[in-house]
Amino acid sequence: MSDVKKVVLAYSGGLDTSVILKWLQDQYQCEVVTFTADLGQGEELEPARQKALKFGIKPENIYIDDVREEFVRDFVFPMFRANTVYEGEYLLGTSIARPLIAKRLVEIARDTKADAISHGATGKGNDQVRFELGAYALMPEVKVIAPWREWDLLSREKLMAYAEANGIEVDMKHKNGGAPYSMDANLLHISFEGRHLEDPKAEAEESMWRWTVSPEQAPDAAEYVDLEFENGDVVAINGIRLKAHEVLAKLNELGGKHGIGRLDLVENRYVGMKSRGCYETPGGTILLKAHRGIESITLDREVAHLKDDLMPRYASLIYNGYWWSPERKALQVLIDHTQARVNGWVRVKLYKGGVSVVARDSKDTLFDQTIATFDDDGGAYNQADAGGFIKLNALRMRIAGKKGR
Amino acid sequence: MSDVKKVVLAYSGGLDTSVILKWLQDQYQCEVVTFTADLGQGEELEPARQKALKFGIKPENIYIDDVREEFVRDFVFPMFRANTVYEGEYLLGTSIARPLIAKRLVEIARDTKADAISHGATGKGNDQVRFELGAYALMPEVKVIAPWREWDLLSREKLMAYAEANGIEVDMKHKNGGAPYSMDANLLHISFEGRHLEDPKAEAEESMWRWTVSPEQAPDAAEYVDLEFENGDVVAINGIRLKAHEVLAKLNELGGKHGIGRLDLVENRYVGMKSRGCYETPGGTILLKAHRGIESITLDREVAHLKDDLMPRYASLIYNGYWWSPERKALQVLIDHTQARVNGWVRVKLYKGGVSVVARDSKDTLFDQTIATFDDDGGAYNQADAGGFIKLNALRMRIAGKKGR
Amino acid sequence: MSDVKKVVLAYSGGLDTSVILKWLQDQYQCEVVTFTADLGQGEELEPARQKALKFGIKPENIYIDDVREEFVRDFVFPMFRANTVYEGEYLLGTSIARPLIAKRLVEIARDTKADAISHGATGKGNDQVRFELGAYALMPEVKVIAPWREWDLLSREKLMAYAEANGIEVDMKHKNGGAPYSMDANLLHISFEGRHLEDPKAEAEESMWRWTVSPEQAPDAAEYVDLEFENGDVVAINGIRLKAHEVLAKLNELGGKHGIGRLDLVENRYVGMKSRGCYETPGGTILLKAHRGIESITLDREVAHLKDDLMPRYASLIYNGYWWSPERKALQVLIDHTQARVNGWVRVKLYKGGVSVVARDSKDTLFDQTIATFDDDGGAYNQADAGGFIKLNALRMRIAGKKGR
Amino acid sequence: MSDVKKVVLAYSGGLDTSVILKWLQDQYQCEVVTFTADLGQGEELEPARQKALKFGIKPENIYIDDVREEFVRDFVFPMFRANTVYEGEYLLGTSIARPLIAKRLVEIARDTKADAISHGATGKGNDQVRFELGAYALMPEVKVIAPWREWDLLSREKLMAYAEANGIEVDMKHKNGGAPYSMDANLLHISFEGRHLEDPKAEAEESMWRWTVSPEQAPDAAEYVDLEFENGDVVAINGIRLKAHEVLAKLNELGGKHGIGRLDLVENRYVGMKSRGCYETPGGTILLKAHRGIESITLDREVAHLKDDLMPRYASLIYNGYWWSPERKALQVLIDHTQARVNGWVRVKLYKGGVSVVARDSKDTLFDQTIATFDDDGGAYNQADAGGFIKLNALRMRIAGKKGR
Repeated sequence: MSDVKKVVLAYSGGLDTSVILKWLQDQYQCEVVTFTADLGQGEELEPARQKALKFGIKPENIYIDDVREEFVRDFVFPMFRANTVYEGEYLLGTSIARPLIAKRLVEIARDTKADAISHGATGKGNDQVRFELGAYALMPEVKVIAPWREWDLLSREKLMAYAEANGIEVDMKHKNGGAPYSMDANLLHISFEGRHLEDPKAEAEESMWRWTVSPEQAPDAAEYVDLEFENGDVVAINGIRLKAHEVLAKLNELGGKHGIGRLDLVENRYVGMKSRGCYETPGGTILLKAHRGIESITLDREVAHLKDDLMPRYASLIYNGYWWSPERKALQVLIDHTQARVNGWVRVKLYKGGVSVVARDSKDTLFDQTIATFDDDGGAYNQADAGGFIKLNALRMRIAGKKGR
Repeated sequence: MSDVKKVVLAYSGGLDTSVILKWLQDQYQCEVVTFTADLGQGEELEPARQKALKFGIKPENIYIDDVREEFVRDFVFPMFRANTVYEGEYLLGTSIARPLIAKRLVEIARDTKADAISHGATGKGNDQVRFELGAYALMPEVKVIAPWREWDLLSREKLMAYAEANGIEVDMKHKNGGAPYSMDANLLHISFEGRHLEDPKAEAEESMWRWTVSPEQAPDAAEYVDLEFENGDVVAINGIRLKAHEVLAKLNELGGKHGIGRLDLVENRYVGMKSRGCYETPGGTILLKAHRGIESITLDREVAHLKDDLMPRYASLIYNGYWWSPERKALQVLIDHTQARVNGWVRVKLYKGGVSVVARDSKDTLFDQTIATFDDDGGAYNQADAGGFIKLNALRMRIAGKKGR
Repeated sequence: MSDVKKVVLAYSGGLDTSVILKWLQDQYQCEVVTFTADLGQGEELEPARQKALKFGIKPENIYIDDVREEFVRDFVFPMFRANTVYEGEYLLGTSIARPLIAKRLVEIARDTKADAISHGATGKGNDQVRFELGAYALMPEVKVIAPWREWDLLSREKLMAYAEANGIEVDMKHKNGGAPYSMDANLLHISFEGRHLEDPKAEAEESMWRWTVSPEQAPDAAEYVDLEFENGDVVAINGIRLKAHEVLAKLNELGGKHGIGRLDLVENRYVGMKSRGCYETPGGTILLKAHRGIESITLDREVAHLKDDLMPRYASLIYNGYWWSPERKALQVLIDHTQARVNGWVRVKLYKGGVSVVARDSKDTLFDQTIATFDDDGGAYNQADAGGFIKLNALRMRIAGKKGR
Repeated sequence: MSDVKKVVLAYSGGLDTSVILKWLQDQYQCEVVTFTADLGQGEELEPARQKALKFGIKPENIYIDDVREEFVRDFVFPMFRANTVYEGEYLLGTSIARPLIAKRLVEIARDTKADAISHGATGKGNDQVRFELGAYALMPEVKVIAPWREWDLLSREKLMAYAEANGIEVDMKHKNGGAPYSMDANLLHISFEGRHLEDPKAEAEESMWRWTVSPEQAPDAAEYVDLEFENGDVVAINGIRLKAHEVLAKLNELGGKHGIGRLDLVENRYVGMKSRGCYETPGGTILLKAHRGIESITLDREVAHLKDDLMPRYASLIYNGYWWSPERKALQVLIDHTQARVNGWVRVKLYKGGVSVVARDSKDTLFDQTIATFDDDGGAYNQADAGGFIKLNALRMRIAGKKGR
C-alpha cells in the first residue's frame, strides 16, 4: 500500500462504491472525500450524502454537484459536432461522461489537498482507463487507487459478504436477484452489460430496457419535431429555446416515448477484449440524425468529408479515454471551426423506434436550387464543363490503359 | 460532330433514351447498338427490343442482358464488405450499378467494333462521370457521346416536342403530369430526384415511395430473420441457401414489407453542387446492419478500425465513379482480405421501418466469454495488467503535465 | 469571346506575358491592368513597368508590389508548420506562391472594378488550376481568361512570330537557344521543366542549376547554423532576429553556398499526367529539417502523428490549388493550434549538399532525461508497468491465437 | 517466479545476455535454450556457442542461425515497398528485425517444447514490446521472462558486479569506459543510444559512428549506381543480379564509403517517452530514395497517394511492434498489390553523404512524353478540357462565395 493521506472517491452511493469507501478507510487508513455527480442519471443524490456521513465522512468532504449543463454543453455537444460514432454504431454515452468526472475529481483533490483519487471501475473495462488517463493528464502527480485491481473481492458474493460484515446496506434485489446488469446512466444514455448479455447470441430481454418503450408499444401516430441549430448545437426545440441539458432531456423524453435509440452490439474494448453491450440513447439518436441533416446543407463537401475521415479516430480517442489529450483537443479545434455556419433547422419524424429527417433549411445553406434543378437553369451551370472535368479526371487511367495496364 | 461510325447506347427503352437513339442516328449518321440491362429494376425489357427494332436497329445490334447475379455478386456484395456509406447515410444504390453498365458498354463496343458509347445521363449529375470514367478506364480510346451536354433539348418540354416530331411514343403520364421524378432503380435501390424534392425543406410525398410500405402501414408484428454469412457475404436466409441476387431480392421483399430503408437527404455531388435525393434501399439497409453485426464478433479490433478509417474514402471513390480505378482495386484487395473469417449468422428484427441486430454467433468468433465475464474468470485476465497499461499510455501526458503544459 | 471590359493580368514583363498583354488588347478590346509581384524571384521589376507603359497601359493600371514578407509570413511559413512535402519529396515552391498571386489579382480587380483576370499558365499544368481556383474562391463572379487554352499560339515558334509581328522584344537567347526551360522562381525555390528534362532517364545538366553551387563545388568545410523558432516559425538565425522573408533569404544564401536543396523528380500533376521537374529549394530544405528537429522535442507524440497523417492531404490541397478552400483552412486551424509550444533552437550542419540536425533544445521540451536515461532513474519510471502494457496490447492477438486464428 | 521448465533466450553472447543466461538458470532453475541470429550485424557468432557451452547449455539447445536472406527478403524489402519512415525520418532498422527474432524464438520453443522465451531488452524501450507482441501473437500461451523488468540489476555497475561474481567475462572496454552506447546492428542499420546522447543539445561525437565515413572523409568524386527493380524490390545493382541480403550488403558498402545514411534524432517511443537516437542506415537510405524514384514513373497517382496516406500508420505499426498483427498484414496485402508494376531501373548519384536520383526508366512507365511535352502535342491533350475541369472543381467554392461565405 502506498502512502496516501487523502483520497477523492467517485461515489454513487450504491453498493459497490460504498464498499470501496469502507475499504479505502480500512486499507489506506486515509481521509476520504466523496464526489457524487448529477449527470442526469435520474437518481436521488441526497441519500449519498447520508450514507457518506454514516461512514464518518466530514460534511466539508462531501461534494454533490449538479454538472448536467456542463456535461451536455462542454462534452456531449462538442462530441456530436463531429457526428461521432464508435465502430459504426455506439454513441459513446458512457465514454463522454468519464472525462468530466475525472476533471472534477482532480479539481476537488486540489481544493481539498488530497493526493489520490479512487473509482469503482473494474480492471477489465474501459472506464478505469478513462478515469485515470484523465486524472493523470490533469494532475500528473496524482495517485490512483483502483480497488477492483487491488483487492480480493473479485466476485459479487465476496463483495456482498464484505458489505454485510461491515454494516453496508444491501438491497433485497441484490440479495435475491443474482448479479444485476452492470449499468451506467447519464443524460446521454443508459447502458447494460453482464448477465445473460455475456452470450452474444442471446437476445436482450424486453424487461431490461428502462428509458424507452419498445417500438411495439410506442404511439401509433408519428410525431414531428423541429430542431434549431446554432454553430452545430441544438438551441431550440419546436421553437422553444433551451439550455444544453434541457435540450437533451427533452429529446430523451421524445425519443423514449417513441421507442427510439435502443442498440445491441458487440464492441471492442481498449483493453483488448470484445464485450457485448446494450444501450438506450433516445435523445442522442435523434441528435445525430438531425445534426447530419443540418450539416448536409450548410457544410462544404470537402469539409464534411474531412470530418468524416477524421471521425473514427476522434471517436476512438473518446472511447479510449483520451478526451484530455492534446490530440483530441487539436481535432476539436478543427471540428469546432467547421461549425461556424452550421445554423438552421431540421424537421425530424419520430415513429415506432425510427427517426428520419424530412426537411431542413438554413440562412447559411449552400444548397443552390438554381444550379441543382433539372429544369433549364438559365446558364447558371454550363453542362459542357463536365466534359473537360471528366476527361482530365480520366487522363491518368486512359494513359495507363493505352500502355496496356 | 466528331467522326463516329458505330455507337453503343445504354438504352432503357424509356422516353429519354429513345429520343437519344433517334438523335444519334440523325446527328451522327452512325449505326447504333443498344444495350439494355436487367439489373433487377423490375421492368419488362422486351418492349425495349421492339422499340429498338422500330428505330431500325439491326437485331444483332440489340443487346438485352440479365446481369442481376453479376451485379450483386461482383459489385454490391464487395461494396457491402466495407460497410460502405457515403456521407454517413447514402448506400450508393445508383453509383454501384454504373460501373457494371460501363463495363458492358465497352465489352459490346469491342464485340461490335463500335468506336463510341453513349448514355442518357445529364451534364449536372454524377452518372455521366461514372459511365465515362469507367469507359475511359476500360477502353481508353473510346469516344463518348453525352447528348445532354451537346444538344439543345435542355428542358422537358423541348424533349417531348422532339419526341412527338419524331414519332416517339410519350406516355400520358408524362404529358399530363409535368416532369416526373428523376428515378433510377436496380436490385439495390430506387432513387428519386427532382420536382418538389428540389426544395430541401419540403417533405417528400407519401405517394412518391414505390418499394416500401410506409412504416405506419407495415405489419404490427415484428419479424425475425436469420442471415448466414460466408467471407463477408450473405449466402443463406432463414436457412435457405441463395445466390447473391436472390439474397438481395429476398431482403428487398422483407424490407419492403416492413417499411425499411427509406432515406431523404441532401448529398454533395462530385460535380460540385448539393442535391436532394430520396432513396428506398430495403434489402441493403438490412444487409449493412447485419454485416456490421457479424463483423463485430469475427473481426479483430484494429482491422475493423482500419476498415472504418478507409471506408469514407472507398465510398467516395464509388460515388465519384472510380470503381475501375487502380486505387479502388487496391482498397478492395485489402477489404476482401479482411473478410476471410467473416462467417457466421446474425438474427435481425424487422419492425415498422426499423431493423436491429438482436443476436449473432460464429465458429470464428473472437468474443471470449471467459475473459469478458463480470464473474470471476479464474485468472484468464490479470486485472493488475491494466495498471501498467494505463500508466504507460498516460506517460506522455504526465510528462507534459509535470512540465506545466 | 465573352464580354470583358477590364482584365487584370499577372504580368512578369517576360516574353510570354507580354504577348498575352498584346493579345488581350487585340482579342478582347479591353482595358488591361498589369500586376507584377516581387516574390523574391531575384529579377528587376521596373522594366515591367516600362514595358507595360509601352503597351499603352495607364500608369494607374500598373501594379508592382513587393509581397515578399507577406509571401513568407502568410504562405510559406504556415505551410512549413505542417512539414509539408508533396509525394515524399517536393517542397511546393511554385504551388505556394500561386494563391498569393490569385488573391492580389482579385484585390486589384476589386480596386479597379475589373471583371476579369488573366494569367500566362498553360492548359496542361497545375498553375492554371491554382490561379483560377483561388480567383473563383475569392471572387466567384470573376471571368478568367487563360490565353494558352484559347489561342492558337501553341508552339514556341508561333509565339515568337507573334511577338515579332507585334514589336515585342525577344531576347537573343530565346531566338538562338531553342525553347528555354520553363522556369518559376520565388523566395522559396526555382523550378525547371521542359527541354531535355522531358526525358526522365536523362540526367539534368549541371549548367541548368542557378541558385545552388554543385555539392562538388561547395566549401570543403562544414558550417553550423543555429535557428530559433517561435510558434513553429524561424525568427532568428545565429542569434540575429529577422523578418520572415529575411529568414528565408538568409537560408537560401547559406543553402545555396553549400549546394543544398537540389531535387530531380517525376511528379503527378492534378490534371492527370506525370511530369518531370527539377527544383532548387536551398532555404526550404534546411527549414524542413530544422522544423522537424524542433518539433521532435516540443510536440506530443500523438499530435505529431496526427500531423503526419494529415500532411499528405494538406500537401495535395496546396499542390492542387486549394489554398483558399474551406478544407485547407480547417486543416490550418488544427496545424497552427499545434505550434503554440514549438519554440526553441536547432543547430544544423551544412556540408556539400547535405543538411543535418545535430542539436536541439527548448524551454518547452517534452524530452525528460530522468525518464529516458539508461542509468538508474530513481523510480521515475516503473519498468514493471511495461509488462501490463504489453499484455493488454497483446490481448486481442492472444485471444485470436488461442482460437486458432 | 512462475513455473517455467524450459526457456528460449535471444542470446547475443555479449555481457548483458550472458548475465541473463546465468540469472535464468539461477532464478528459474530451468533449462535454457539459446538462440543467436546472424542478421548481418557483422559479428562472429561462434564465440556465442562456446560461451553457451561454458554455461552448461546442451549442444542441441544452442541455435545459431543465418537469417540474413530471410530478414531482407521477408521483412526489410516488404517494409521498403511502402517507403516506410517513422516520424518523417527514422528508417526502422531495429524495429524490423525484432519480429523475425520473435518468430524464431517461438519456432524454437515449439521445436524444443519450451514454455517460455526471454530477451535482454529493458523495460523502458520499444524492443521488449516488439519481442513480446510478436511472441504472444504467434504463440499465445507462451510465458515471457523479461529480466530487466524483474531483477534488481538496474545499473551497469550492479550488472558488472553480478557478472564478475558469476565468472562471466567482462571486456576491458566495459570496465574502463563507463557505460557504452546502447547499440543494435543488423543488415539494415546500426543504432546508438545512451551516454551523452541523452542530452539532445549535445552533438554526437565523430568517433561514435561505425559504418559510415564522415561526409568530409568520403571520396571527392561522386559515384553513380544503377538499381534494377522487380515488383518493388531491388534485384540487381549495376547489372549484377543479387539476392535480397546481398543487395543490402552491397548498398551498405556503397553508402558507407560515401558517408550516406547518418541520422540524429529525437523519437517518440511507444512506451510514452521521448528518446534520442543516432542511426547509420547507408543502404536503406539509398534504397528509400531509389524506390520512390521507380514508383514515380510506374505508380498511378492515386495509388501513390493512398500509399503515402497509409504509410505513417504502417510505420507506427512496425515501430510499435505490431508486425505480426492482422492489421499490418492487411496493409501489406494492399502494399504488395500495388507493386506488381514497380519495375525498371533508377540511377542514383552518391556523394559526400548525399544520395540523389538522377535518372529512371521502366517498360511499365506511366510517364507519357507526348502528353507532358511543352511542344505541340498533336492533340494528345485537349487544353480546353482544363477549363471545365477547373470550373467544376471550383463550383462549390463559387456557390459559397456567392452566398457570402
